[in-house]
Amino acid sequence: MTGVIGNRAARVGGVEIVTGNARYVGDLTFPDMLTGALLYPDLSPARILRIDATEARRLPGVVAVLTHADVPGLNRIAYSDVEDQPLLVSEFAQYQGDAIAAVAALDEASARAALAAIEVDLELLEGVFDPVEAMRPGARRVWPDRSNVHEHLVIERGDVEAGFATADVIIEGEYTTQLIEQAFLEPEGAVATLDADGAVVVYASCQSPHRDRRQIAVALGIPENRVRVITPYVGGAFGGKDEVHVQIHAALLAQATGRPVRLIRSREESIRTHVKRHPIRVRHKLGATNDGRITAIQVEAIGDTGPYVNAGEEVMSVLAATASGPYNIPAARIDAFTVLTHNPICGAMRGFGIPQGTFAGERQLDKLSRKLGIDPLELRLLNGLGTGTVLPTGAIIREGRPMKACLEGAADNSGWRERDDTQREPAPHLRRGWGLAATIFTVGFGRNVPDSAGVNLEMIPDGTAILRTGAADMGQGAHTALAQIAAEELGIELGAVRVVKPDTERTPDAGPASASRTTFVSGNATRRAAAVIRESLLEAAATLTGLPEGELHLGGGYVHATGERVTTVAEAAAAAKNANLPLHADGFYAMEFPEKYREGDYPYQHQVFTFGTQVARVLVDIETGRVTVEELTLAQDAGRVINPDGAMGQLEGGAAMGLGYALIEELKVVGGRTVNNSLESYLIPTSLDLPPMSVGLVEIPEPMAPFGAKGIGEATLTPTAPAIANAVADAVGASIDDLPLSPERVLAALEGGSS
Amino acid sequence: MTGVIGNRAARVGGVEIVTGNARYVGDLTFPDMLTGALLYPDLSPARILRIDATEARRLPGVVAVLTHADVPGLNRIAYSDVEDQPLLVSEFAQYQGDAIAAVAALDEASARAALAAIEVDLELLEGVFDPVEAMRPGARRVWPDRSNVHEHLVIERGDVEAGFATADVIIEGEYTTQLIEQAFLEPEGAVATLDADGAVVVYASCQSPHRDRRQIAVALGIPENRVRVITPYVGGAFGGKDEVHVQIHAALLAQATGRPVRLIRSREESIRTHVKRHPIRVRHKLGATNDGRITAIQVEAIGDTGPYVNAGEEVMSVLAATASGPYNIPAARIDAFTVLTHNPICGAMRGFGIPQGTFAGERQLDKLSRKLGIDPLELRLLNGLGTGTVLPTGAIIREGRPMKACLEGAADNSGWRERDDTQREPAPHLRRGWGLAATIFTVGFGRNVPDSAGVNLEMIPDGTAILRTGAADMGQGAHTALAQIAAEELGIELGAVRVVKPDTERTPDAGPASASRTTFVSGNATRRAAAVIRESLLEAAATLTGLPEGELHLGGGYVHATGERVTTVAEAAAAAKNANLPLHADGFYAMEFPEKYREGDYPYQHQVFTFGTQVARVLVDIETGRVTVEELTLAQDAGRVINPDGAMGQLEGGAAMGLGYALIEELKVVGGRTVNNSLESYLIPTSLDLPPMSVGLVEIPEPMAPFGAKGIGEATLTPTAPAIANAVADAVGASIDDLPLSPERVLAALEGGSS
Repeated sequence: MTGVIGNRAARVGGVEIVTGNARYVGDLTFPDMLTGALLYPDLSPARILRIDATEARRLPGVVAVLTHADVPGLNRIAYSDVEDQPLLVSEFAQYQGDAIAAVAALDEASARAALAAIEVDLELLEGVFDPVEAMRPGARRVWPDRSNVHEHLVIERGDVEAGFATADVIIEGEYTTQLIEQAFLEPEGAVATLDADGAVVVYASCQSPHRDRRQIAVALGIPENRVRVITPYVGGAFGGKDEVHVQIHAALLAQATGRPVRLIRSREESIRTHVKRHPIRVRHKLGATNDGRITAIQVEAIGDTGPYVNAGEEVMSVLAATASGPYNIPAARIDAFTVLTHNPICGAMRGFGIPQGTFAGERQLDKLSRKLGIDPLELRLLNGLGTGTVLPTGAIIREGRPMKACLEGAADNSGWRERDDTQREPAPHLRRGWGLAATIFTVGFGRNVPDSAGVNLEMIPDGTAILRTGAADMGQGAHTALAQIAAEELGIELGAVRVVKPDTERTPDAGPASASRTTFVSGNATRRAAAVIRESLLEAAATLTGLPEGELHLGGGYVHATGERVTTVAEAAAAAKNANLPLHADGFYAMEFPEKYREGDYPYQHQVFTFGTQVARVLVDIETGRVTVEELTLAQDAGRVINPDGAMGQLEGGAAMGLGYALIEELKVVGGRTVNNSLESYLIPTSLDLPPMSVGLVEIPEPMAPFGAKGIGEATLTPTAPAIANAVADAVGASIDDLPLSPERVLAALEGGSS
Repeated sequence: MTGVIGNRAARVGGVEIVTGNARYVGDLTFPDMLTGALLYPDLSPARILRIDATEARRLPGVVAVLTHADVPGLNRIAYSDVEDQPLLVSEFAQYQGDAIAAVAALDEASARAALAAIEVDLELLEGVFDPVEAMRPGARRVWPDRSNVHEHLVIERGDVEAGFATADVIIEGEYTTQLIEQAFLEPEGAVATLDADGAVVVYASCQSPHRDRRQIAVALGIPENRVRVITPYVGGAFGGKDEVHVQIHAALLAQATGRPVRLIRSREESIRTHVKRHPIRVRHKLGATNDGRITAIQVEAIGDTGPYVNAGEEVMSVLAATASGPYNIPAARIDAFTVLTHNPICGAMRGFGIPQGTFAGERQLDKLSRKLGIDPLELRLLNGLGTGTVLPTGAIIREGRPMKACLEGAADNSGWRERDDTQREPAPHLRRGWGLAATIFTVGFGRNVPDSAGVNLEMIPDGTAILRTGAADMGQGAHTALAQIAAEELGIELGAVRVVKPDTERTPDAGPASASRTTFVSGNATRRAAAVIRESLLEAAATLTGLPEGELHLGGGYVHATGERVTTVAEAAAAAKNANLPLHADGFYAMEFPEKYREGDYPYQHQVFTFGTQVARVLVDIETGRVTVEELTLAQDAGRVINPDGAMGQLEGGAAMGLGYALIEELKVVGGRTVNNSLESYLIPTSLDLPPMSVGLVEIPEPMAPFGAKGIGEATLTPTAPAIANAVADAVGASIDDLPLSPERVLAALEGGSS
């Protein structure tokens, strides 16, 4: 009877998107709507000596100019508990993205004129731009009253010293990853309006409407139930819209003017302001016996989070918790530092620390493999974790089989074991190489972090349904997956489910659309809501047909008994309504941790993981240094795939982003200010840059997950860069330990280094 | 700790209404919005020979003209199962309110021009206007293929023949009640728009958004989950907006044009089209012993429902089920006929059949009282029902104490037993009299009729809440009562609860706002939703404070233990969120029938009732026939009052409507067409027409009800007219058995009749 889960599903909202009918924030207009704009500092870091908006306020067409003094509530943006970023700065312009003033004007030109007329006196300060320098005792401080080391996190398990002592070989390396721009298609934007009763309604391209609601209320100084956040179509987010961006500013301007205000970032403004992927320096030490068994690791990671913490703590925490990779490591010591600088702020971005840690760890394994002469695949199979493995965090792997299944799958599909060494030099200037990398990825926020979701589901007696979810779909296909789960449980076609987009007045809090958690947490909530309605349907169908409830099954719009269609779901629903049975239910699910927490465990440990392996085949042009990926083979653990089309999109998209990370993407910073602030100068891979990809899915259902399905939105980003770097090392024998693998770096490595 | 229930509460939305900020349907505008209009027949009943919209469609400014051929789905409006009323008629124009065509144009003038240009050839038919005539064998038929007697309902209990045989006196009477206009302040209206994805959004001044959604979907031929009905502020309804009115027409025009369409009825159109209160002829026979005990009744009621059934069946059913009044009647036979005519259609209107039946029954008791020389109060106390009384429907009165408590309360407050007979003739042309009437009123739809409601409640960690209800507030104060129930259960102030108005995409189906059921059914659903959240709050508060959950109480925004405030509800909510406890819940309640259904019982019997008594003191001018009500004393059973201010408004408002019913209101019909189609010619009482009222509340909590509160929106309309008629009979000794008690009727009675 199963007809929806696991079958190819047309994307919910896909037709609207491709026909141009989807309405994004920028498509919204309201009568009397004003244009909003924000003023940023020309210099940073700087002390603010004076802000004078008198002239600006007098200009024609200018309706409001707000500075820090005009924020009625808390003048703060915060990703989590650390509320250190002002909405409108007063004392310091710490980085290029600090907002100094917010303007609302009749049109764009008046708004620009107002920004230009605001007089701001800044005193340029000496900046802190190198996180390693920033950690030294006596280093100049980013904040007068705060240490530059915002947090030092330690995870320790086993006897590390003894582990290294028993090792036959020690591999030590230092790895750096670059600052990465989110580069979502739709820059951040919000439109704020006032309801007839004075409540504030904010349309925002965002990932976390309920958290935004709280922050807007707190900043405006009004009760939270007087704020309504609506998420229309979202043109990409990747974590960069997980934090609040211009929503509060738009709401402040609407509150101040009593009129609708649209505030949309330009591409340049978007790149200058929002959080990036942390550039991280990882020092990694690995000990192993001659037969290839890892005895201990020691990892130190330094993350540059910019002047405000944002998600820095959390990113470094996830990096630390997964720094041991998908391996059985008897002893580990991991130190992770979240460091404040005057560089652009960093925060959540697809992968959330795991790509950086994996790059270091998988390069290390490759070096070990070379050193011991053990094939990279065999070395990973030897050390690969399994069910019952205890990670350094103390988490016990509940289902470890997918780890090696991914290794084997990627090896089989790429012909890893049949690599043809005669093809290593296809032309005098070209070298071919093969690289492999494996990963462990986490699902959900981890223990001791609130991680719940509600959904609301309604079955209509004509056989259609409405699913109300507060989980944002920013392109990842979450709404399709949730609609499939609802359709499956209610026994109707996917097309019969209408998904209501996040709207804090219509949809329950589902938490942020992040941490690869939506399918898992909101999916479980959807199942729970559907279970209530399903019971009504079955009870009513049993009465209608006179058959025992236990013999009835729902599917495809019909009620079946012993293989026959005995009535329709619509008729059962109508009968249920007439019988006063509920056809409307809230579903609530909170992440569960069946494993007991033990003394010494890491408090934020995860208990649900996905695994993946990628194999890259590359050609290196030893004359130009250019790396071409000829083929990418992915094997990814998904638990169970809800929508194969959506899964492919996510997996290939992740690898594409990983390819950009490996080869071409880098947001260049000079004196704390980014220089390539456009998509002409900041390059991301286009479809023409992508190699042929083979994607293999490993489906070993996770018992706690809805239909066994785990989140797969981020995982395949992770092994791509190390797989490519390992392949380059394999091709040319030169080790490149810094991303991206630019032609300059490749040439330099060819001249100087070796692996 | 109870701080909300039973205390005076400012009306939810009241400030918006009195400041003019409340947005009604007529206040809505959308870009490119068209004006809709409907064409009605100049003659009726008539056969439609030709409809030609060719010219009309060619006129400038006309965007669409729709006739019956243009309805993609089912061309029907229906209140319940009988779908006999076309949206756009094709064969017959049966009554003045039949829509022949629907027009959408750029402006009002173009729309009017289009209506005028539609060529309609009608052949006037002989009409059926007298329901009693219509019942005769061989009478002309309203519909060629249907009997004029749509339904003949019989309720029988006990040995009626024997009952009359043992009677010492028999009272027989015939009573008629008039056609009554709803006269809500805001005429019917709707604005239909299309969503970006083609879904149809209809803003409608309505009482039953979810039923409207179904009818719109069926008429437009689209899935129901592609229709969204939103109820903004509603300026009165009384049952006249319980059925769908112009919603579907507006939606059809929006679907046809792809543009927003506003369709608002003028006052004249409103009066010509919507359902009225049924004019009913009741023949009543009553037997009693000389000591005043009623032995049997026989009642025949004939209701004229117009050419379409609408709520006719249901109204006659409720009349029949309550025709025995609040008395212990050992034997009864009740026949109720729903008759089709060519008169205006009748349907739901505040009171729903009970005012008509009560007028007859209470006049009968008054006549018995006179005949036997037993005081009207004592006669009613003697026969008054009590707990355990079995009604003719078979319903067993579960809580009968309020019946006599109301009698005693009204008698005490009016000084009934101390009536001063020396004041009976205060001037030569004036006569004073006292009249008393009692009533039984039903709560909910009755057994075997689906009667359920959902609500959705969200607690926000800042201590505020959002209540989402699909129950329309059309002025009766439902949202205030539901917000009070939520506030009480969550332990917060009423002002901390924000109510989201009905919107089928935001709020669960609560069924129609009718049958005095909202406080009861939606109130219970609210309690159930709150219970889930309350449990989260208490659990979190127990963890926060270290106190046992059982010792904690919520109230006024605080958590209390042994009389002390130990934390706030906001803090408990924040802790609950952090502990992954649900703060969001659906509540569902379906009417329960704890009494067993027995063979021979009436299938639609009620099990929850309210009781009431009214005493009227009147002055009759025997020269002009004018009746002046000097004082009205109400005693009303409410179970428990949620909001005293709201209750007073409902009770006084009901009695005011009853006063208009008694004395001045009558929609005059000539040849099936109404003639006084304005509020200048159809008079309703103004505040200056109202007598001083004393309102006494009887509060004996109903165990099944939320906090014991029963619905009180309709009950006090019921005894007013018979109390006044009884008072007039008492004043002048003349029996007037037809409503209204117009000066002409009073003078005629003075000349001819006697009681």
